Amino acid sequence: MESIADELFKEFKENSIAEFFRKNRQMLGYAGKVRSLTTIVHEYVTNSLDATEEARILPEIRVEVREMGEDRYSVLVRDNGPGIPKNIVGKALASILAGTKFHRYMQQRGQQGIGASSCTLFAQITTGKPIHVRSSTGRESYECDISIDIKANKPVVSNTKDVSLEFRGLEVYGEFADVKYENSEHGIFEYIRRTALANPHASISLLDPTGKEYAFPRSVNTMPKKPKVVKPHPLGLEPGDLVEFAHRSESRRISSFLMDTFSRVSNTKINELRQLVNFDLSKSPKELTWQEAEELIKAFKSVKWVAPEFDSVSPIGGKYLELAMKNIINPEFISVVERKPKVFRGGIPFVVEAAIAYGGGAGRKSGEGEEAGGNIIRFANKVPLLFDSSICAITYAVRSIDWKRYGIKDFEQEPVSVLVNVSSVFIPYSGVGKQAIAQENTIIDEIKLAVMDAARGIQRYISNVRSRSLAESKYKTIMRYITQLSGDLSELTGSKQEILEEKLKRLVDTKYKKLFETDEQSGSTQGGQGASGDESKEAS
Amino acid sequence: MESIADELFKEFKENSIAEFFRKNRQMLGYAGKVRSLTTIVHEYVTNSLDATEEARILPEIRVEVREMGEDRYSVLVRDNGPGIPKNIVGKALASILAGTKFHRYMQQRGQQGIGASSCTLFAQITTGKPIHVRSSTGRESYECDISIDIKANKPVVSNTKDVSLEFRGLEVYGEFADVKYENSEHGIFEYIRRTALANPHASISLLDPTGKEYAFPRSVNTMPKKPKVVKPHPLGLEPGDLVEFAHRSESRRISSFLMDTFSRVSNTKINELRQLVNFDLSKSPKELTWQEAEELIKAFKSVKWVAPEFDSVSPIGGKYLELAMKNIINPEFISVVERKPKVFRGGIPFVVEAAIAYGGGAGRKSGEGEEAGGNIIRFANKVPLLFDSSICAITYAVRSIDWKRYGIKDFEQEPVSVLVNVSSVFIPYSGVGKQAIAQENTIIDEIKLAVMDAARGIQRYISNVRSRSLAESKYKTIMRYITQLSGDLSELTGSKQEILEEKLKRLVDTKYKKLFETDEQSGSTQGGQGASGDESKEAS
Repeated sequence: MESIADELFKEFKENSIAEFFRKNRQMLGYAGKVRSLTTIVHEYVTNSLDATEEARILPEIRVEVREMGEDRYSVLVRDNGPGIPKNIVGKALASILAGTKFHRYMQQRGQQGIGASSCTLFAQITTGKPIHVRSSTGRESYECDISIDIKANKPVVSNTKDVSLEFRGLEVYGEFADVKYENSEHGIFEYIRRTALANPHASISLLDPTGKEYAFPRSVNTMPKKPKVVKPHPLGLEPGDLVEFAHRSESRRISSFLMDTFSRVSNTKINELRQLVNFDLSKSPKELTWQEAEELIKAFKSVKWVAPEFDSVSPIGGKYLELAMKNIINPEFISVVERKPKVFRGGIPFVVEAAIAYGGGAGRKSGEGEEAGGNIIRFANKVPLLFDSSICAITYAVRSIDWKRYGIKDFEQEPVSVLVNVSSVFIPYSGVGKQAIAQENTIIDEIKLAVMDAARGIQRYISNVRSRSLAESKYKTIMRYITQLSGDLSELTGSKQEILEEKLKRLVDTKYKKLFETDEQSGSTQGGQGASGDESKEAS
Repeated sequence: MESIADELFKEFKENSIAEFFRKNRQMLGYAGKVRSLTTIVHEYVTNSLDATEEARILPEIRVEVREMGEDRYSVLVRDNGPGIPKNIVGKALASILAGTKFHRYMQQRGQQGIGASSCTLFAQITTGKPIHVRSSTGRESYECDISIDIKANKPVVSNTKDVSLEFRGLEVYGEFADVKYENSEHGIFEYIRRTALANPHASISLLDPTGKEYAFPRSVNTMPKKPKVVKPHPLGLEPGDLVEFAHRSESRRISSFLMDTFSRVSNTKINELRQLVNFDLSKSPKELTWQEAEELIKAFKSVKWVAPEFDSVSPIGGKYLELAMKNIINPEFISVVERKPKVFRGGIPFVVEAAIAYGGGAGRKSGEGEEAGGNIIRFANKVPLLFDSSICAITYAVRSIDWKRYGIKDFEQEPVSVLVNVSSVFIPYSGVGKQAIAQENTIIDEIKLAVMDAARGIQRYISNVRSRSLAESKYKTIMRYITQLSGDLSELTGSKQEILEEKLKRLVDTKYKKLFETDEQSGSTQGGQGASGDESKEAS
């Protein structure tokens, strides 16, 4: 006898991740024509930056976008990185969830093994064409076509030829439909501009579909600190992580497993932990139960730990961040903050940097129709985030700040730009398309602290600006009445009006002069608009 | 010789989708304690509604949530559906991307084969415990424990026992940590309340962690229309879809392939298409090239088609929608619109329903701190969407409407609630967590049209309300001066003040009376606040 359930479950099937994303490409960022094209460039450029950084090569990245028809473009990205070995290239570019980055505890821009393969998939489902790859690794030099067997999530590599190439590195070329080039806040130009600003060691050039050339030369000739593969920090680990690490461990005892696997675990710490748990740390890690893992996690939390290794994260750096802000928005005043590393779930260290720009070009930018007033410029691991702003932890944190306390009466209305970069070996993105950071409390709190720190830096500047503008308006009012006043005085006293007017003007000028002196001393103030500040009290 | 690339790619690995989501659980909706708990109930309840609907059983769903410790809860969901066969249950509940729904062209709440398995994964990584399942299909009756082998994305089923059960259907029980029960807009109670409202044929009961019982009995005793597996409509198909369908087809000719595979393709249409393409429709579909598929897609767009089969989508229905609005918010006035089906990419039919409530309880709701003023209540396939509102096509469409044109001066400030339900065999969710509809232009446009239609319905009501309140304030002003006036008149004329006052009051009352009459006739108006309308002109 067959039940209804048996009948209904006859169609039960398993699907490949490639098939899933073929049907749900919007989850990868392929939603909207402009966004789709930017996503392609984003995926290839971040891979190039990661590859060159790991190989310690100063990146030269070339991006070419050409119009091929209605809503149809080709994209070429070439780098001077290490290239990809011929026997790996298929899987690297056409197998979703395969890659070198997923299993490593190291800060990289990519982390999922999805990006480049998703471009191959997107080319295939919109134009039916494979990606054309040329690569030279130094040992081999070849070209080939790559597509995906969607049902199996396996690469299909064809037309492989050994060729001599004029460059060392990787070049990918693809044709895509249902995409559009646009010179907007969400377009490729803006994406590359922001990427260049957060990666001053990179040289990037762009050929846009109108044939225009843009160059973003490097501004520093030193590589960023080498990203380091690190051990997880005990704080914030979950029982599940601990059990998994333990059962895979080759160590003989739980004590040595803890010291080998996690950072900052010393003999002293093991002795402290022994006092806090009700089982023997000398037994095999393979025998660690869930309950014991929970006990250990609790014990971790009552022990004092050294903070995680700072080397594991590679932020932009305060100096470069300030330079970037000046270049992006040329404001009157900039305040920059680089916080110490913190830890969130899984013992993952992260660092938040924040910069606030006020006045000048801050706040409103040309071509940015959406935001009138304060704006938020987001980065994760130095990669610009252009989409899904509204669900991002950065947006949430910045908007939840009581800006009035920092002299900004209405964040939406004032000329203020807030830049935040979150760096970590693992960024918890809210979606596969990696355009927003998930709203985890630890991260939100840390962003808020960083931005509030930076806000205190601009607070004094803003109150000076306010006092100055108050004094300025008083000055203008008085000046307006001086002609009238000198006429009246001349009638009363018989003195010459011109002389009286001249004298009065000189008096007022002397009194208010100091307030409008340009201030060239302040390092953080750009241009000649800074107020010297304390004297403003005299005006009231 | 080994190149840098060879060295770097030594760590190249492939990962399972379960491993990917273990590290990125926030992408499944497991971000934040309250949201995580609601997500669990959401996944199980949608599965129960789908299963009972397919088996044509009026659903009885039982949800029990118990507190087990700090941030630790158990969830039990039991239904009276068809149950799951013993040989399938592991894969159905513990293998991500496996299921009956992914490959079918049929409107269901679930569609990805991710939901229930993600709950198993989440239980495992937060408490290390398997899910306990009891099921009776009529043919078999058993219980078992289910967990996931994360590295392989394969189910691990243990402790299976044949038992006699007191119910027919499926019961799942799991223990979860890092979750929290909250009585808020994002909590389980609100989720179930909205589910019940959009599914009036379902009976749902909830036991909350405080021991309180809530019952949502069914309000109709008929099943919704049986969801129909449909053929894709030619309009909106992409070349990739067409090539894939063609190459898998068993038909001998492209012409018969088109008629067999897609809806609304008749012999007449084939003859029309023949005139529009430059290749022979009599050749085998296996030989269809990408370029030919593109030609066909272009031809599809210049032929006049019958709209897609309405049977494939199963909306809530205007009558139930109005009932739901009355139950949810008890407003003064409701306007409901059910649009005809439309098609978006891939030939996928969808239907938008919209309802606008004004006045009374509309707009602001208790416990809804976030929105002060107009609010948006979102559903996809009758499933309430509680999260990620800001990136949803529904939110975008509603906010982009020029509400002033419909008498609503500021959407954020007025007592207005807009409910939208999008029904389709395939909802393009923006993320795996299925809480927002991707912003596809066709869908946004259709939502806008539906909401604007409904807005026209409330426009006249609002302008009547405005006229009435104007008349009301004039009436009050006049009444305020009548005592003074009657006193003055009494002095002038010698008549008694009391009599004069009485006469004047009666005069004014007669003149304005009609404007404040309660209006019981209007079917769309609830309660006694409706204005009869046209007479308001007399007041000016």
